[in-house]
Amino acid sequence: MQAKIGILTVSDRAHRGIYEDRGGPAIRAYMDDVLTNPWRPVALVVPDELEQIKRALLQLVDDEGCSLVVTTGGTGPAPRDITPEATEAVCEKMLPGFGELMRQVSLRFVPTAILSRQTAGIRGHALIINLPGKPSAIRDCLDAVMPAVPYCIDLVDGAYLTTDESRIKAFRPKGK
Amino acid sequence: MQAKIGILTVSDRAHRGIYEDRGGPAIRAYMDDVLTNPWRPVALVVPDELEQIKRALLQLVDDEGCSLVVTTGGTGPAPRDITPEATEAVCEKMLPGFGELMRQVSLRFVPTAILSRQTAGIRGHALIINLPGKPSAIRDCLDAVMPAVPYCIDLVDGAYLTTDESRIKAFRPKGK
Amino acid sequence: MQAKIGILTVSDRAHRGIYEDRGGPAIRAYMDDVLTNPWRPVALVVPDELEQIKRALLQLVDDEGCSLVVTTGGTGPAPRDITPEATEAVCEKMLPGFGELMRQVSLRFVPTAILSRQTAGIRGHALIINLPGKPSAIRDCLDAVMPAVPYCIDLVDGAYLTTDESRIKAFRPKGK
Repeated sequence: MQAKIGILTVSDRAHRGIYEDRGGPAIRAYMDDVLTNPWRPVALVVPDELEQIKRALLQLVDDEGCSLVVTTGGTGPAPRDITPEATEAVCEKMLPGFGELMRQVSLRFVPTAILSRQTAGIRGHALIINLPGKPSAIRDCLDAVMPAVPYCIDLVDGAYLTTDESRIKAFRPKGK
Repeated sequence: MQAKIGILTVSDRAHRGIYEDRGGPAIRAYMDDVLTNPWRPVALVVPDELEQIKRALLQLVDDEGCSLVVTTGGTGPAPRDITPEATEAVCEKMLPGFGELMRQVSLRFVPTAILSRQTAGIRGHALIINLPGKPSAIRDCLDAVMPAVPYCIDLVDGAYLTTDESRIKAFRPKGK
Repeated sequence: MQAKIGILTVSDRAHRGIYEDRGGPAIRAYMDDVLTNPWRPVALVVPDELEQIKRALLQLVDDEGCSLVVTTGGTGPAPRDITPEATEAVCEKMLPGFGELMRQVSLRFVPTAILSRQTAGIRGHALIINLPGKPSAIRDCLDAVMPAVPYCIDLVDGAYLTTDESRIKAFRPKGK
C-alpha cells in the first residue's frame, strides 16, 4: 500500500505566485531521498490565514488519508505567522519534543532558532510536523526528527514507513 | 513525620491483570534506593482512562496527602495515551522544564524519546511527575530530575525529603 | 528614535519595600552594558498578583510603547509565583524556545533550573521575556537569548536595537 504524505506550504507570497515555493519542493526532495517505501506526495499551498491552513490540514489528513503532513513556513513571531496555532487547533495531541529538538538543532546554526514556534501533533492516523520556511533549515530539522517518525506513525495506525538506513536510521523498539 | 509518595501505574493491561506492572515497582525500588527520610508508598493501578487517572491523582494528593506523585505509562502519542492530559487537568501549575530535561536525557538512548509527552506540575502541596512505562527509562528520567525534587516540594510546603548523596545530590539554595 | 524598554520587578517583598529590588537594577545594568542604540528604561515594581502584573505589562506595552519588556521574579512553582500566567494572558503568541534555552543554560549552574517556568511572548510590537529573580541568573539568561532579541523585535515592527558586538552578537538574517 502506498503511503500518502501531505506537503503544505504556508506563505502569502508563494500563494499569490509572487514568490517561488522552495519549501514544499525541499520537503519532497528530502522524502524522495530518505523514504524507501512506496509513497505519494499531496502538495498544497495556502496563504498565512488560520482558517485556510486548518482547512488544508483537515483535507490532507481526513480526506486524503495522509499519514504524515509536513508544513513549511509561518512558524515565526511575526503577526502573519500562524501555522503552529492552526496545527494545534486540528490536533488531538501535541508532541512538544519535536519542537524542542528542532529548535535545539537549529541553534547550532543561528541564535534566532529560539524564535521558531514550530511544533508537531497527532490527528487521527496522522503525524503533523511544522518546519521553518528556509530549505536548508528544513533538511536540518527533518534529519533530527525523522528517526522517530515511522514508529510514531505506527503508534497511530498510519502507513508503514521505511527509510534508507545510510541516510536515516528509523528506530522501532524491539518486540513492537 | 513520614512523607507519602504516590505511585500511579497507568496501563489498561496492568489494570486488567493480563500484564505484570513493572513500572510501579521500579519507581518504588528507586525511591527505596535514593530517599533517606522516612516515607511510605501509596500505589494505585488504573486503566488509560482520563477520568480514572484524574480521580487517582486527586485521591493521592488531596485525600492521602502525598507530597510527590510519580506516574508511569500513558505518555506516548497512541490514542489511549492520556496521562499528561489528566495531569494537566488536576494541576494548578505546569513545570515544562521536567519534560524537556527528561526527553533530552532519554534522547541519549533512543531517538523516539521525542514522542514522549511526559510533563510535571503542582497541585496543592504536591509535585506530580509523569514517567514513561519502561523500567530502564524510569531510572534515567528520575536520575535527571530528582536533584530538583526536594526543593520543589519545599516551595509548595510538602514533606521534607532527603537523599543519599552518593546516589542523588539534592540541591537547596543557600539561605532557604 | 529612542527605544523604550520596560523593566518589571514582580515581588511581594520588593513592592512592600521590605526587600531591596535587585532584579530590576540588574536588568537595567545589563542593557546599559550591551545596547548601543539610544534607549530609555521604564521601571515598575508590582506584587505577585495576577491582575497587577497583567496591568503593568499592558501599561508598558500599550501605553508606554516599550519594544521589549523584561520581567524578573515570580517564575517558580510556589503558590505566589504567577508571572508566566500573567505573561501568557497578555500575549498574542508564545515563544517556547526562550524558556527552553534559558532553562538549559541555567541547568549548567543549578539542577533546580527545571523548576523555572519562565517563558516569552509577543504582544503587539513588543517582546516580553520572563527572567528569574536572582541577579546572577538574570545575566546568564539574557546572555543566552539576547542575540535573537533585536531580530525578533524587527519582526513585530518594534524599535531597532543594536548591541555591542564584543558583548552580544545580535543576529539578523542576510537580506532582511
